[in-house]
Amino acid sequence: MQTIPERIQALRALMNERQIDAYLIPSGDPHQSEYVAPHWETRAWMSGFTGSAGTLIITHDHAGLWTDSRYFVQAEQQLAGSDVVLHKQQIPHAPEHIDWLATHLPAGSKLGLDGMVVSLATVRALERQLTPKGIHLVTSYDLPGQLWATRPPIPASEVYDFPVSYAGEGREQRLDRLRQWLSQQGGDALLLVALDDIAWTLNIRAADVDYNPVCLSYLLVEKNDAQWFAGRRRVPEALQSQLSEAGVAVKEYEEAADALAHFASSSVIVVDPATISHRFYELLAGKNIQEAGSPVVSMKAIKNEVEINNWQQCMRRDGVALLRLFRWLETTLRQREVPEVEVGEQLARFRSQQALYIGESFPAIVGYQANGAIVHYRAEEGSCAMLQPEGILLLDSGGQYWDGTTDITRTVALGRTTEAQRQHFTLVLKGMIALSMAKFPEGTSGAQLDTLARQFLWQENLNYGHGTGHGVGYFLNVHEGPQGFATSAVTSRGRTAFRAGMVTSNEPGFYREGHYGIRTENLMLCVADGTSLYGNFFRFETLTLFPIDKRLVAIEMLTRQERDWLDRYHQQVQEALMPLLNDEEERAWLAAQCAPLVNDDISSLKDLFY
Amino acid sequence: MQTIPERIQALRALMNERQIDAYLIPSGDPHQSEYVAPHWETRAWMSGFTGSAGTLIITHDHAGLWTDSRYFVQAEQQLAGSDVVLHKQQIPHAPEHIDWLATHLPAGSKLGLDGMVVSLATVRALERQLTPKGIHLVTSYDLPGQLWATRPPIPASEVYDFPVSYAGEGREQRLDRLRQWLSQQGGDALLLVALDDIAWTLNIRAADVDYNPVCLSYLLVEKNDAQWFAGRRRVPEALQSQLSEAGVAVKEYEEAADALAHFASSSVIVVDPATISHRFYELLAGKNIQEAGSPVVSMKAIKNEVEINNWQQCMRRDGVALLRLFRWLETTLRQREVPEVEVGEQLARFRSQQALYIGESFPAIVGYQANGAIVHYRAEEGSCAMLQPEGILLLDSGGQYWDGTTDITRTVALGRTTEAQRQHFTLVLKGMIALSMAKFPEGTSGAQLDTLARQFLWQENLNYGHGTGHGVGYFLNVHEGPQGFATSAVTSRGRTAFRAGMVTSNEPGFYREGHYGIRTENLMLCVADGTSLYGNFFRFETLTLFPIDKRLVAIEMLTRQERDWLDRYHQQVQEALMPLLNDEEERAWLAAQCAPLVNDDISSLKDLFY
Repeated sequence: MQTIPERIQALRALMNERQIDAYLIPSGDPHQSEYVAPHWETRAWMSGFTGSAGTLIITHDHAGLWTDSRYFVQAEQQLAGSDVVLHKQQIPHAPEHIDWLATHLPAGSKLGLDGMVVSLATVRALERQLTPKGIHLVTSYDLPGQLWATRPPIPASEVYDFPVSYAGEGREQRLDRLRQWLSQQGGDALLLVALDDIAWTLNIRAADVDYNPVCLSYLLVEKNDAQWFAGRRRVPEALQSQLSEAGVAVKEYEEAADALAHFASSSVIVVDPATISHRFYELLAGKNIQEAGSPVVSMKAIKNEVEINNWQQCMRRDGVALLRLFRWLETTLRQREVPEVEVGEQLARFRSQQALYIGESFPAIVGYQANGAIVHYRAEEGSCAMLQPEGILLLDSGGQYWDGTTDITRTVALGRTTEAQRQHFTLVLKGMIALSMAKFPEGTSGAQLDTLARQFLWQENLNYGHGTGHGVGYFLNVHEGPQGFATSAVTSRGRTAFRAGMVTSNEPGFYREGHYGIRTENLMLCVADGTSLYGNFFRFETLTLFPIDKRLVAIEMLTRQERDWLDRYHQQVQEALMPLLNDEEERAWLAAQCAPLVNDDISSLKDLFY
Repeated sequence: MQTIPERIQALRALMNERQIDAYLIPSGDPHQSEYVAPHWETRAWMSGFTGSAGTLIITHDHAGLWTDSRYFVQAEQQLAGSDVVLHKQQIPHAPEHIDWLATHLPAGSKLGLDGMVVSLATVRALERQLTPKGIHLVTSYDLPGQLWATRPPIPASEVYDFPVSYAGEGREQRLDRLRQWLSQQGGDALLLVALDDIAWTLNIRAADVDYNPVCLSYLLVEKNDAQWFAGRRRVPEALQSQLSEAGVAVKEYEEAADALAHFASSSVIVVDPATISHRFYELLAGKNIQEAGSPVVSMKAIKNEVEINNWQQCMRRDGVALLRLFRWLETTLRQREVPEVEVGEQLARFRSQQALYIGESFPAIVGYQANGAIVHYRAEEGSCAMLQPEGILLLDSGGQYWDGTTDITRTVALGRTTEAQRQHFTLVLKGMIALSMAKFPEGTSGAQLDTLARQFLWQENLNYGHGTGHGVGYFLNVHEGPQGFATSAVTSRGRTAFRAGMVTSNEPGFYREGHYGIRTENLMLCVADGTSLYGNFFRFETLTLFPIDKRLVAIEMLTRQERDWLDRYHQQVQEALMPLLNDEEERAWLAAQCAPLVNDDISSLKDLFY
């Protein structure tokens, strides 16, 4: 069972036994995580395609992989010689494979999938389109699991306490808030499935998946106590006692299914169709089920004062790590070429020298020249580009710290820049600044504000193909709901109204295929800014602390207000980072990077007019 | 049956006979028109409240009228002494009375209403909330109709042909397009109920309701012919022949119900739940019904070249009428005070002196000083304010012409202005200009662009409580779907993507209660503006041609780009209107109004910086 064709052949044999006509393998785990543990990398094992997003469908005469433009090149390489056909999705995350199933499977067909790794909402979406076509869903078999002898085990890293000095609120208080919500809903129990929801509620962290410091588990919150299905052996005794004091009993991960199957039928259990697996939902058949979005999503989106104050400190250390990276890069490039991969490794090293560092918050994107135009580019050792002292580099990276999660993109010049590069960089920067300076009334959503970031590119018939920002967790997932900046108000990201305490990325970009990519990204905190007859108003405060490369700024394209914003931001960066620097050369480098754009004497006014 | 209490008492007696516990009277006609003919002003007859929006509910111990803040003052005055209680709605058009019904009617109650004047969608919304409470709907009685002896007749004004030279497309072509749509939908017949949809399809106009040049009728489009239920006597024979050549048979208005009741049960009829009355839907019980939004809505929103060229000419004459009004006002105010009402009358007179004029497109809003802050203010003879040569005047008005519909708001100084007035005027103007200069990719909706108009007010913790713009009909309804500028992407207005050929108003405002109101409104045409790697782009071209009062502009608050836009706009206005003026004083007045904001010599640059 070494090759992909062998695996697919074996799967087809199992399908035959069960009279299944098509088998669907999504990219998911039982918790609908963004990053899944190797145990659930079933789609990669069956197809060879290792990208983060993709759906595999095997029929008796076809094997197809659906993924979006981020992964076309990678998928073509990895699927070569495997008989798996690449289906190019028009729209990322769109369920285009369902259309294919609806068209290609005859009435009476059976579509198999593992109900453990798809959400209830996903199964309903499949049924909505396939049931009218006479196609039946069979969700009870994990067929690849029967073949995968070398399947990695379910992770069970050691769990650790996340103290109130970092979290700002105890687990008792958080459980209380959930119980208040539960009682307003008329529910008796709440099942939490999303791993970051659970980590936030219980003030625990672990290392079960890459980048997200979460613990693979389920949490069942009831009126007076809670059961946490995380595995006893990996929770230190001291922590178990603390949890026990908060009324939380630690159980085995595998016991969750049983607890649901035996849940009191007189009680009302609240579940979130977007995260609960179809299998778990089936276990609750006949119970009093109430469906509702997880209340933790909006609770954890509002950061408390302790979290915010910590985060501001964390940002200073992250800025120092970046400063050392860019100084190292400048020096090294004078001596030799530098592979993209080395930049990412070196940055992780500089971050790891900072206090309270845990690890990267996502795989760094190091995109030199044309590679910067590949939005989800991942440099690979051996094949990646070599940086030289020319052109521009896009660097999107972040760290996990005890006192915050960072996510920052800077685009920097490694040598002389062209006028087109400066123009594009400045159009993106103007949008980033417009969003940074935005002020808006209560109820304003990300879809309304997103336009501010794009308006200058639009004026030049330019645009970028990704959202402008996402919510960010606090020492949790770097991509967090519910708010964000997006063109579509259909998504929760575009539809959610901003509230004080939310932390969101601001990251417009521009990508010139085959040439270069530009993105500038800061994290911003939403804060209250006054109340008038016209309601409550909000604005953003920038949290990220690192200079923006002035060599790429076409000053004449900035308005006075925009220049003032940039100068003020650089002053703030300088004041925050300088006290952490002892090395004179580092101090001088920072001072130069943060110097005001231009002197403001009257004689230069005309040139500055835009 | 002279007084409101007598009418309500009589209604309660009828309710008793039918065992009805509550009776609901909306503001509607069988076509869900914005302006209803007097025949359907039932709510006004029963309550005394004549505002355009309001819902009356009569129970045996309560009579309540729900309306929104636009009408609080008027409703309080008109309901005084009638026992009808005013329920103040929080949100305009929100169905807050349904919550009241759900709370106040006991289970088992019967709610009566006339199924002829409510849409299917409205009845469904009622049922969604009331059925779970055990409240039953009885839609078969028009109880007020049984009492209303002096009820005005159903209007039947003479219908006239709207020739292709104005419409740009024949009725045959339009019917063909509907039949193509119908066949794609798999339908055999399409029922059109909205009066502007019918006028557009058949290229006819009439004067059945105020302001909207429509003909009260139904149109049933089938595969090979069509039946138009408009009334034979009022359609001139020549027009009947033309219609007959296009396969359209003219029937009596009252025959529509019968045609639906006898519609072939083997055929599929397409109806729009937003416009078809509940009664008509019931007549179709047991038929093959397909529900879909009217296809005419998006067809008529895209104006053709003939319509656009005509409209541009129409705008010139409308501008001349406004010029004469403001010149007359300036002169008259030197001699005497002028009542607000007279301004509206005089403006209608100046418009009526222009070629191709038909009438007003809506009741002009003439709001002097504090009255300008009442968004839907309507000046009444005797009670209205007297204009003096001081303060500011908001004038929102429009005309119906054979070659277009106009809708323009200007806010002008009648004397010295204050700094606050100039600041507020300029914040509004900056937003109006930002939307006028917007450029955006295909798929961009009004909710995304609306932010551009509000951003400058938001910066000062200010806002306005209405949408920023609505679609406009071409010699049809001044409020037309589907596009517009609105904060909410839930509405069709906020959600619809702009397409080339759409005409939309751009009308941000600011209202300082008790002091003054400011609004500047132009109509804009959406045009294609290039295609790049990033898709098709669009921008707006301003159609409205009349100067913006520079005395209210705080020049130092404008950027160079905004000043350039204003100067270019004034140049365009001057070039378009001047050829229509012979009077030297008028020409001089226009030239002064359209003169550039400032000379651009370098010495003044510093002051202009913002």
